[in-house]
Parts: sequence; structure tokens; C-alpha cells
Amino acid sequence: MTAYDPENIFAKILRGEIPCHKIYEDDHVFAFLDIMPRSTGHTLVIPKAPARNILDITPEDFAHVARGAHKIAHAAMKAFKADGIVVQQFSEPAAGQVVYHLHMHVMPRHEGVPLLPPASRKEEPAVLEQHAAQLKAALAQS
Amino acid sequence: MTAYDPENIFAKILRGEIPCHKIYEDDHVFAFLDIMPRSTGHTLVIPKAPARNILDITPEDFAHVARGAHKIAHAAMKAFKADGIVVQQFSEPAAGQVVYHLHMHVMPRHEGVPLLPPASRKEEPAVLEQHAAQLKAALAQS
Repeated sequence: MTAYDPENIFAKILRGEIPCHKIYEDDHVFAFLDIMPRSTGHTLVIPKAPARNILDITPEDFAHVARGAHKIAHAAMKAFKADGIVVQQFSEPAAGQVVYHLHMHVMPRHEGVPLLPPASRKEEPAVLEQHAAQLKAALAQS
Repeated sequence: MTAYDPENIFAKILRGEIPCHKIYEDDHVFAFLDIMPRSTGHTLVIPKAPARNILDITPEDFAHVARGAHKIAHAAMKAFKADGIVVQQFSEPAAGQVVYHLHMHVMPRHEGVPLLPPASRKEEPAVLEQHAAQLKAALAQS
């Protein structure tokens, strides 16, 4: 497997070198909105540990990412009155991975609303800001 | 949310009332092959706790499922000389959930081989038995 590249875009977001719509952070994980959401509130949960994907992350750091996804999923159900949640994580190009810092997608779903294809449409920053505020408000209540 | 139904098919598999191609078991999780695999070695990791999906499982049990998926992913890369791994988990009908005991899909991927559509083809038991043997052999080496 290719080695972890500390210049990947999510590593830069973690270091604060690139802005993001941050939702949540603790000692182990960081969560922010996907700027090309496949559904309203599409969030990415990433480990603070430098891991390319499931093949080099430790089981404990992957468990931390899962706990973060669980937290975001519950907040997203409230924030967007969602009907369901999809969790996805891709490892290596053959699986559809595009950015090489492990990320778990948390996608709120609504009945009858299909997911957009991956990376098909960049959302307006004002809309992302509003969605981030809704998610953070729901997290603050939990 | 609808309450957990202990008569769902995965609960029956957990209780040994229905056979399965078992791959792995520990105190918290159980893993077996999907009988309608979307890729070679498509495995389901489920919690022993009675949880419908991400909305009623505890964060700790979801973390256990993630550790199980991590273990299966590493074994599957070896067992099938895979090029990548997709991890997916669906909660509620709006998200595509069909069986109402939480399950995390671990799907080995090979370059240029698309995933089959969900539930499109039932695999031959002899093929599943062979794939289960390969996965268990890889787990035993890890």
C-alpha cells in the first residue's frame, strides 16, 4: 500500500491550513461537512491519527471514527428531520477512495430523495454554513 | 423509530436457528458471508447486542462492530488479493436497510470489477463455503 501523504487535503484541514465547515472535534476525531454533499448534511468524520484508510489505521482509531460517526448520525437525524442514515468508508482507488486520509461518510437520507452521485455538485458556502449551524445546535443538545 | 424485532433473520442466525457461512465471532460481534454478495468475500459484521441500526445501538457496540469490520477487511485483502475495501452501513428504509439487525458490509474490491447491485444474485453454497474457508485461513494467520 502507498504510504500516508501528509500533504493530502484532509491533513491540511486538520492542521487548519485550509478552512472547512467544522462540526465536531475531540481528542481522536474531527468532523466537517463535505463541500460536494450527496445529501443534506453529508458529513465526513476523520481520525486525527495519520491514516490513509482502513488498511493502515489501528483498530482503536477506527473505533474512534465509528463513535464519531454515531454521534454525527444522531445529531443529523434531529438537525435535518432525516428518515435514515448511510455510513460509508472507501479504502484505496479500487474502492472509490479519492482523498487519502481515512474518512467515514455520514449521509442523512430522506424518503424518496436519492443520493446525488459522488462529487457531482459543489454546494453554496452559505448553505453549508446553515447546515453546519443546524448540526452543531443538535450536537449541543445531545 | 420502530422497536427491535428479535425475529429478524440475523437475530435467528445469531441464535443458531438459521445456518450461515460464519467467518468470525468474539464477545461482541459475529461475522458471516452475505449470501447475495456484491463482491467476492462480501461479509456482514453484526453486533451481538440487539440493535436495529445506528439509531439504537450504543456508541461502544458500534465501535465493536467497527473493530470487527477492520479485522475482516485486513483478512479479506489477503484472502482474495483484493485491491481495496468498501465499508457500508444503512439505517432505516430511507437509507436502504432491508434486514433490521444492524450490519456493517465489508466488500473486497478488485480494480475494474464493479459491485453487483444489492441482492441481485444468490451465490452457490459451495462457492460461499470456499470463500469462508479462505477468509478464516487469513484470519488465523493474523
